[in-house]
Amino acid sequence: MQLLNPVDQIFLRLERRNQPMHVGGLQLFTLPENAGEHYVRDLVTRARTFDEVTPPFNRRLKYRLGQPFWVDDTSFDLEYHVRHLALPQPGAIRDLLALVSMLHGALLDRSRPMWEVYVIEGVTGGRFAIYSKFHHAMMDGVSAMRILRRSLTAEPDTGNMRVPWQLPPKPGQPENARATPWGGAWRTLRATARQTAALPRAAQELYHAWQDAGVDPDFTSITQAPRSLLNRRVSGSRRFAAQSYSLTRIKRLAGHYDATVNDIVLAMCASALRAYLAEQDALPDKPLVAMLPVSLHEDDSHTGNRIAMIFASLATDIADPVERLDAIRRSVNHWKNRYRDMSAEQIMAFIAALSAPAGVNLLSGAAPRHQSFNVVISNVPGPKETLYCGDAEMQGMYPVSIVLDGQALNISMASYRDSLEFGLIACRKSLPSMQHMLQYLEDALDELEPVDTAHVGADELVVDGG
Amino acid sequence: MQLLNPVDQIFLRLERRNQPMHVGGLQLFTLPENAGEHYVRDLVTRARTFDEVTPPFNRRLKYRLGQPFWVDDTSFDLEYHVRHLALPQPGAIRDLLALVSMLHGALLDRSRPMWEVYVIEGVTGGRFAIYSKFHHAMMDGVSAMRILRRSLTAEPDTGNMRVPWQLPPKPGQPENARATPWGGAWRTLRATARQTAALPRAAQELYHAWQDAGVDPDFTSITQAPRSLLNRRVSGSRRFAAQSYSLTRIKRLAGHYDATVNDIVLAMCASALRAYLAEQDALPDKPLVAMLPVSLHEDDSHTGNRIAMIFASLATDIADPVERLDAIRRSVNHWKNRYRDMSAEQIMAFIAALSAPAGVNLLSGAAPRHQSFNVVISNVPGPKETLYCGDAEMQGMYPVSIVLDGQALNISMASYRDSLEFGLIACRKSLPSMQHMLQYLEDALDELEPVDTAHVGADELVVDGG
Repeated sequence: MQLLNPVDQIFLRLERRNQPMHVGGLQLFTLPENAGEHYVRDLVTRARTFDEVTPPFNRRLKYRLGQPFWVDDTSFDLEYHVRHLALPQPGAIRDLLALVSMLHGALLDRSRPMWEVYVIEGVTGGRFAIYSKFHHAMMDGVSAMRILRRSLTAEPDTGNMRVPWQLPPKPGQPENARATPWGGAWRTLRATARQTAALPRAAQELYHAWQDAGVDPDFTSITQAPRSLLNRRVSGSRRFAAQSYSLTRIKRLAGHYDATVNDIVLAMCASALRAYLAEQDALPDKPLVAMLPVSLHEDDSHTGNRIAMIFASLATDIADPVERLDAIRRSVNHWKNRYRDMSAEQIMAFIAALSAPAGVNLLSGAAPRHQSFNVVISNVPGPKETLYCGDAEMQGMYPVSIVLDGQALNISMASYRDSLEFGLIACRKSLPSMQHMLQYLEDALDELEPVDTAHVGADELVVDGG
Repeated sequence: MQLLNPVDQIFLRLERRNQPMHVGGLQLFTLPENAGEHYVRDLVTRARTFDEVTPPFNRRLKYRLGQPFWVDDTSFDLEYHVRHLALPQPGAIRDLLALVSMLHGALLDRSRPMWEVYVIEGVTGGRFAIYSKFHHAMMDGVSAMRILRRSLTAEPDTGNMRVPWQLPPKPGQPENARATPWGGAWRTLRATARQTAALPRAAQELYHAWQDAGVDPDFTSITQAPRSLLNRRVSGSRRFAAQSYSLTRIKRLAGHYDATVNDIVLAMCASALRAYLAEQDALPDKPLVAMLPVSLHEDDSHTGNRIAMIFASLATDIADPVERLDAIRRSVNHWKNRYRDMSAEQIMAFIAALSAPAGVNLLSGAAPRHQSFNVVISNVPGPKETLYCGDAEMQGMYPVSIVLDGQALNISMASYRDSLEFGLIACRKSLPSMQHMLQYLEDALDELEPVDTAHVGADELVVDGG
């Protein structure tokens, strides 16, 4: 029995029928050459034999005195959590994206451990897919992608299958919470003490932050975002779009402009949003503000949420792509300097205080009077080497994040090999034809290409918009 | 803009994440002999060309001054409502039932017209299926089954496809509400006036009903149902099981015992519930009470909810099947006599008052202090003749109903040709191995078979439990 930390509790309280609070991942695999007719069915059957389910996958919610706790699920049902689906033939990628859109729109059952894994057969080109969803109160996007990665192997190996819910312990890792029943309680106590100790420093930073808002032109205050099409109340239906972009090309542009990969990625998103909103005749005069979650993970063992936030200007009011990139970079650097000397606990307390007005607005469901930010953009580091599920090679791995009232679009990405893989999730009703963004992201790279450099041609498209 | 009637409003207010309030139907079709590889995809594509969507399929909810109204959806999106899925190969019936269980557990998007149709390809034996779901505030189970039936044809005809959301007007039918904009408002006013006029008679009957509870042994009061496994809080996950039973056999038993088909059906359910609860070591001493919704439809034009309720003893405390049947029949007849001289409006007002304590308990989510009834059993009249979707013959048509907190099982059935087709929907967590009920229903028929009659052998199983 373990109390949820304050940030995780927010993810429970924010959830509504039009606003499910789970994160997901879509993985695309190539069937091995010798794969028989029942390859995928056998995979599901084998996965369901891994029934020694480890935390947090065996834990469900339980409320006591109004407080949410994690407890072990005594009627765990692996068949419920691991499902086998198929695409209608010929299994087009647009059908896969439509299926993921549908699955991602459905709420998780709160009376069970809040995760589901769907193995989807019949993807065109001799492929299959795995879509996984985890409640954000159980783990954040970074933890989800890390766990999905750890459930794969670096070599094709039919005999060595892994599953996210029963990973082998890592070398040098302490035993898990179930093996040491008092460990969880002790860690919670210690974390609470650290959080409390961090409050004075956080209050001090909060004071400086509000002061800076008046004087520093590169500081993006969280109340200066314009209202936009992205910031309406959302419906319960989703559209998922995904595509891979060349990391080599992005790195080359970063080198050319003396920027980071993240700066270039933000510039891509800024350009795509500018083009999409212009297409919808809805580009605000003031620059859009992006919220960038920053992971505070110190090691791999902690699967809960430890994130800070940067509020970066996307400079969508600037027509010139290079000037726009410069403005974005300055805005991000301001926030990096602010966080540099704070501990993880200090940053979390600071964020909690800073984003309180947004939290209240989201919780109340009222149209927010202050728009804190327009869009969440997050970048999850991923594996550089080719990974396998058993003997099936993974072709791509796309994050599927969360849409909220007032936040109708989320852009998440993960790196894999030489690709940066974008997963865009949106309210299907607020943002018509959102999938056009995929082309605009591509166009953004072309825009930044220096005139003296030959264009390297279209990037490899593993997945295209449905 | 049309105000929802009071009963329909209850279905909106009762809805929670673990308690979706939509009804559904699963239809199973045989592919025609000449069907090509893309038969089902072409069917979906053709269905999506029917975009002149008629009420209530084009109407979404809108709240004004706290009251729910139906308004036309101005951003209707047929691709969202009509979806194309597939079963993993070889497409076992248990996979189909698992898929329907999953789809039925997900909430409808309240910002759109609240219905979805799933065309599912790849069912074993050269078949495909259509699962449809409609919010109960939009139409009741009877209306849903009637509309699904009207979207089929009596002759196989490739050129004459129909869809539920754009049915041809019936001969002699007044034009629909969209064609006469003032008609809806006028009808609402008239219905409100009739409901108000019905209140005194309903109050009088209510007084008699509570009086009878003390003196008439065959009158099942709505507060005398025992607590049981069926009456726990439910999870958000569902199990759907379905099977066809021979109507000829049921009718022959009805004739033998001088009972109605409904009496025999109730006796089947009573026997199956007795066996299932005994298997779970949870059979209450007192008899279970079934709630039987009775349709008050006067004609086919009204698609809203007009239902009354009978609270019948299932006599599950009686071991002898024939004595049990007798007790059930007497209980049902008592209620039929009560309703005989009341108008539809009087019955609806009576029911609203009578079931108010149950309604309050359900709405509050508190464990009910009075268990009004244990299980809902409903029987929807269906077509006698073979029906077709285009040129594909319908093999079976199974209702998929609603599970509530305190009502973890619903048994619904529809007749088709010589079959009575049972659809059982349950909370997957509260009622483990609920699919065993299918065999117990079969056993119930054997039990009632008179000793001098040769057993006719196992009934044809179109669908078996997953």
